[in-house]
Amino acid sequence: MPHKVEEDGRNEVFRPNFPAMFQHDAELRVRYGETDQMGYVYYGDYAEYFEVGRVEALRRLGFAYRRLEEQGVMLPVRDLRITYHKPARYDDLLTVRTRITALPDVRIVFDYEVINADGVLLCEAMTTLIFVDSATMRPRRAPEELLATLRPFFDR
Amino acid sequence: MPHKVEEDGRNEVFRPNFPAMFQHDAELRVRYGETDQMGYVYYGDYAEYFEVGRVEALRRLGFAYRRLEEQGVMLPVRDLRITYHKPARYDDLLTVRTRITALPDVRIVFDYEVINADGVLLCEAMTTLIFVDSATMRPRRAPEELLATLRPFFDR
Amino acid sequence: MPHKVEEDGRNEVFRPNFPAMFQHDAELRVRYGETDQMGYVYYGDYAEYFEVGRVEALRRLGFAYRRLEEQGVMLPVRDLRITYHKPARYDDLLTVRTRITALPDVRIVFDYEVINADGVLLCEAMTTLIFVDSATMRPRRAPEELLATLRPFFDR
Amino acid sequence: MPHKVEEDGRNEVFRPNFPAMFQHDAELRVRYGETDQMGYVYYGDYAEYFEVGRVEALRRLGFAYRRLEEQGVMLPVRDLRITYHKPARYDDLLTVRTRITALPDVRIVFDYEVINADGVLLCEAMTTLIFVDSATMRPRRAPEELLATLRPFFDR
Repeated sequence: MPHKVEEDGRNEVFRPNFPAMFQHDAELRVRYGETDQMGYVYYGDYAEYFEVGRVEALRRLGFAYRRLEEQGVMLPVRDLRITYHKPARYDDLLTVRTRITALPDVRIVFDYEVINADGVLLCEAMTTLIFVDSATMRPRRAPEELLATLRPFFDR
Repeated sequence: MPHKVEEDGRNEVFRPNFPAMFQHDAELRVRYGETDQMGYVYYGDYAEYFEVGRVEALRRLGFAYRRLEEQGVMLPVRDLRITYHKPARYDDLLTVRTRITALPDVRIVFDYEVINADGVLLCEAMTTLIFVDSATMRPRRAPEELLATLRPFFDR
Repeated sequence: MPHKVEEDGRNEVFRPNFPAMFQHDAELRVRYGETDQMGYVYYGDYAEYFEVGRVEALRRLGFAYRRLEEQGVMLPVRDLRITYHKPARYDDLLTVRTRITALPDVRIVFDYEVINADGVLLCEAMTTLIFVDSATMRPRRAPEELLATLRPFFDR
Repeated sequence: MPHKVEEDGRNEVFRPNFPAMFQHDAELRVRYGETDQMGYVYYGDYAEYFEVGRVEALRRLGFAYRRLEEQGVMLPVRDLRITYHKPARYDDLLTVRTRITALPDVRIVFDYEVINADGVLLCEAMTTLIFVDSATMRPRRAPEELLATLRPFFDR
């Protein structure tokens, strides 16, 4: 299968030959209220940045997380891991690079990198989320529609 | 009607003769994540402090806000006004003094003062909340049970 | 003085004839963590939206708030007033319309409107901030450079 | 060495025989603004709960984190890992159980459990923080005073 990169403005859908994955870049600017008295972004506020990353990645694939919930699918977070390399600071323009590196089943795993405007890697993270049927509150498989959209990125 | 003060640990129910009102003190400690790079509590984080103040005031009156919601009554905020006099800082032990100065009808008004451990007044605020029926999403009068509890503080 | 509107992408600098003012629109999307269990944006989280509004308004004028702080000028908030008309919801794309309606002196006043993608006005607000010399921690006049930039919007 | 448990009001210093560690319980109540539209505490807000846990654990040992910073020692977070078992909900009274299971060197590791009022384990977490000299911004060993206080818990 040939190498393929689609571009669309500042956000890109990468489909590199190796490894199989889906990747998306989202940009956000650090707000004053997100800093703490060290002058750094508070360590807990990155969780919102990763949420922006994965929501925008899903939107790029055509899946509004809002619509998932309206269809009775919830996606609570099961695991969060963050390694902080360098602090982000007030007004920094950050790129949240989000990757899906495996086809979801009952779980979906997102990997993240936060990179500042100078290209410095500030932190790396991973979240595991569980698809939950909001009627029964039990785990369920990822919606077929999402799997169908993701398969081409992994099927080679 | 005689002056009356009930005490119960650190929280007090004042029923001073004048003016008619209900007052409650709640204590909280400033968290690191609530500071910003000025070293002050971020101006938006006081909204949570006032929420703690009014929720604990209602609890003191026997009304768990959680139970209100379970009974189909929501209390969205309609108005918020804050005047910031002095900054609160990391680890400060704050008193949120909350007052109800009028019997609620469709609205309930809370006044707040935030005072630090040295007795310095840091800020003053006021919120107006609306009682909403969560089935119809329309404004409604305050629950009679709440009015009955509050009347003695205003009826003199 | 002739009516004048400069445009630049999605953000506009309005210099309407009447009244004298500077206006700027910033866009932001509601994050999941900003909602509460009513399904609304938490009332305190609007403070960050207004901060985004005024910071982007100042940036549009050529004033990075970060640079102001580096030059020894702090801008703590003295007053905040918000009236909430309708709730904002998860994933809503909001416009924060920010206006400076008077030349700053020791204080600068910003007015805000938050408008959703359907053009519905969700809330209105006002903040008053004080220019403070971070060496002496005393109030000071607005930097002359900022006044010089703003005068054309008010001088007619 | 005999088993020893010191008690002091609701917070306890455990020195069980095995394993060597320091443990502290802090209580906090879930605020409305910490819930999201699922009705759960937002996954990122636990970071503040862990901060409360470790700050109160250090305070119990006689170390105000505020004082550490004033003495030129910063403690940025290097790693955060959280596993979410069950959701915390609005108004829940939570216990944040914090453990130090090894003598710190340049790093200090805290383990956490969040437990609700019914004794249900809601989540488990771990943070690694680095002692940094705020003058040089370089890693440094834990202050000797802290080590001296902790040694009895590990020295057996």
